[in-house]
Amino acid sequence: MRDHPNDAYRILTAADVPAYLSSRPHLAERLGGGAGDWQVRDVADGNLNSVFLVDGPAGGLCVKQALPYVRVAGESWPMDVNRAFFEVSYTRRLAPFVGVLAPKLHDFDETQFVITMEKLEPHIILRQAMIEGRPMPLVARDVAEYVAAASFYTSDLASPFEVKAADQAIFTQNRALQRISVDLVFTDPYAVSERNRITEPLEAWASCFRADIDLKEAIARARLAYLTRAQSLLHGDLHTGSIMVTEAETRVIDGEFAWIGPSGFDIGTFIAHYVMAWYAKPWHAPAPGFQDWITAEILTFWAEFETRFLGHWRSFRGSADGFPENHFAEPVAAARLESLRRAYVSDLFRDAMMFMAAKIIRRVLGFAQIADFLVIDDETQRAEAQAGALALARSVLVHPERYPDIAALVADLPRFAGAGLDPARSWGTFKA
Amino acid sequence: MRDHPNDAYRILTAADVPAYLSSRPHLAERLGGGAGDWQVRDVADGNLNSVFLVDGPAGGLCVKQALPYVRVAGESWPMDVNRAFFEVSYTRRLAPFVGVLAPKLHDFDETQFVITMEKLEPHIILRQAMIEGRPMPLVARDVAEYVAAASFYTSDLASPFEVKAADQAIFTQNRALQRISVDLVFTDPYAVSERNRITEPLEAWASCFRADIDLKEAIARARLAYLTRAQSLLHGDLHTGSIMVTEAETRVIDGEFAWIGPSGFDIGTFIAHYVMAWYAKPWHAPAPGFQDWITAEILTFWAEFETRFLGHWRSFRGSADGFPENHFAEPVAAARLESLRRAYVSDLFRDAMMFMAAKIIRRVLGFAQIADFLVIDDETQRAEAQAGALALARSVLVHPERYPDIAALVADLPRFAGAGLDPARSWGTFKA
Repeated sequence: MRDHPNDAYRILTAADVPAYLSSRPHLAERLGGGAGDWQVRDVADGNLNSVFLVDGPAGGLCVKQALPYVRVAGESWPMDVNRAFFEVSYTRRLAPFVGVLAPKLHDFDETQFVITMEKLEPHIILRQAMIEGRPMPLVARDVAEYVAAASFYTSDLASPFEVKAADQAIFTQNRALQRISVDLVFTDPYAVSERNRITEPLEAWASCFRADIDLKEAIARARLAYLTRAQSLLHGDLHTGSIMVTEAETRVIDGEFAWIGPSGFDIGTFIAHYVMAWYAKPWHAPAPGFQDWITAEILTFWAEFETRFLGHWRSFRGSADGFPENHFAEPVAAARLESLRRAYVSDLFRDAMMFMAAKIIRRVLGFAQIADFLVIDDETQRAEAQAGALALARSVLVHPERYPDIAALVADLPRFAGAGLDPARSWGTFKA
Repeated sequence: MRDHPNDAYRILTAADVPAYLSSRPHLAERLGGGAGDWQVRDVADGNLNSVFLVDGPAGGLCVKQALPYVRVAGESWPMDVNRAFFEVSYTRRLAPFVGVLAPKLHDFDETQFVITMEKLEPHIILRQAMIEGRPMPLVARDVAEYVAAASFYTSDLASPFEVKAADQAIFTQNRALQRISVDLVFTDPYAVSERNRITEPLEAWASCFRADIDLKEAIARARLAYLTRAQSLLHGDLHTGSIMVTEAETRVIDGEFAWIGPSGFDIGTFIAHYVMAWYAKPWHAPAPGFQDWITAEILTFWAEFETRFLGHWRSFRGSADGFPENHFAEPVAAARLESLRRAYVSDLFRDAMMFMAAKIIRRVLGFAQIADFLVIDDETQRAEAQAGALALARSVLVHPERYPDIAALVADLPRFAGAGLDPARSWGTFKA
């Protein structure tokens, strides 16, 4: 980490990229030829950073620079460029556990806050595939494996506590991006805020949510859980825009929101975006069977997460403080440990549902909207789709006991599809 | 923090202290006169450090040096001297909130790892007063205020989350002393360990505890809570040996185990040592009514903690992320917030009971024994006293639902006083 801005920091444009890469020979070598042979494309798509794809005679690279402000908001919203440091720290920390499910890093420039990494092509952003109704057969199980490995191996279940403490010493400094999560996910959507972007037909829903003390209690619990439950290293922003896919490959990108927090957060974030895709789908171009594919993938994702997380734990043979080996070596104790493993995963599920709901609400009533809904041109139709997602999210937050397992969640999706724009009607129908 | 040993580090003896203080004029000035006028006493009493009291014509000082090993174990057990840095960081962080309940720091020498602070005299260690059967009228409410202020003002209830995150970035580096807590409190007593000091008449209890899967499950939950529940800045070792008292004054000392963890930990530690004093008391010199005084003080401590913690929260007017002001401003929401405050305190109580029990067990079956029991010369009598405390601790860990409030705990103390040396008998009588 360094202070920013440092005097040498310059915002790179597409035109600057060849000279930049020429100055770093180990990167230039990957491209082959010279600067004149390289094609540069500006492909920035997320909310925060510059991203360039570069092709040369021998290969390609992805060049990502942290800008000193939020790209989509402009210079009026300054943002700590050290997020690039945290993204690199996150990616390196997980590399031994997630393998090819993350992009390969080639370089981190601590002065320019530029990460140069594997170019992912012909990968597309998973969100785009979801909108187009293209089933991607591996992604749910790949992301399940990614989250299972990260949640297990960076927790106290897999190491002496000193390892997580060292991670905390680093990632508790990633405060600028956590401020975004705390405000945009857990706080703004339940209050009047200039940053909220509420589409007019949803004003009644937004107003109901702001007045709903049960919901504000539930979100307070979620917020405190996020702030205090230091279980494992989180990606922190694991939505369908942070995942690149082909039919044969999955890559999780953009770990700049990394944080030591509740393992259920990444799980819930991923499921939230499948749930929202489900509610949006009827208003997209016809894609027969795609809603059913989404629900099947939600079931697969959770089942695979559970299997793989438990699998890592059962086969773990190292020394860890969570459940010391010498406490659970005897056969009876080992049998009890198996119950405790299942209870741990049940707790993760409960947290995941809570965070899933929080993530849905922030994507509908908060600042950062998602394309799944935004591509629905008709504002009323879009609001109808969003209202279903909001009604489900509220139900999950306020009535967690109704969602003891993933089946209960999936079974409940259709119940809220017709929630409609009048929340009072929905309250009568669905709240009791 | 610095690496140790640094070349300039020297272990101070009593004979070295005057020259050392002469070299730091702002300290010498507090003593008055010159080095030849100063009286130095070696008063080391805890397990870890050197402590000297120095008197001069104008005043006194306490000089505490972190040794590079555990004082009571000798050089074979090395220990990070940076604990002095963490103690100072802890004391400075809490000073605005706890005022005169902590000693005043005059100096921290980062090379010699020496803290020079207010000399506490005629204060005695609270444990000594408990053993002598001398009631100290202020201590329970003073410590309640200390813990209430620390638990509230260093939590997400009283600050933007960045403040706690900055504390975590510091205190997650205090790993050497956390290793002691994790091993000695949560792990060793439930396994065969060379460090355990089990008195012979308690071998049957120790053996039962090692085989008790319900207990090992409960302690696993406690250990994970300690490792993952990042609520507030803890003292980390708040027993009756870390508190100095007169009838008119209370000072909490020795914050070197500081850690961001569950607020219930300090509460539970304090109560644990009152509970153990209660079980030890019948075997000390007669002190009529002192057991009743102890139980009254336990009730007072919790009631005062609750009142003061809630008082801090109710009167708090700043900006904090835990319960954002704009979520709970309306009268109905404000009324709900009051329920949430009470629920928060109930959660702290539940945690406190769990940690209390863990602390009792580690003081009886683990490495660091306490004088309250050790002063009972007759080994069988001592074991009888300890068995009562063990039986209560097990009940609290395995049957937490039996202890919904502090009254239930206090009412249950006599039930286990006759637990005896045969745990099988106790199991039959008490377990069901």
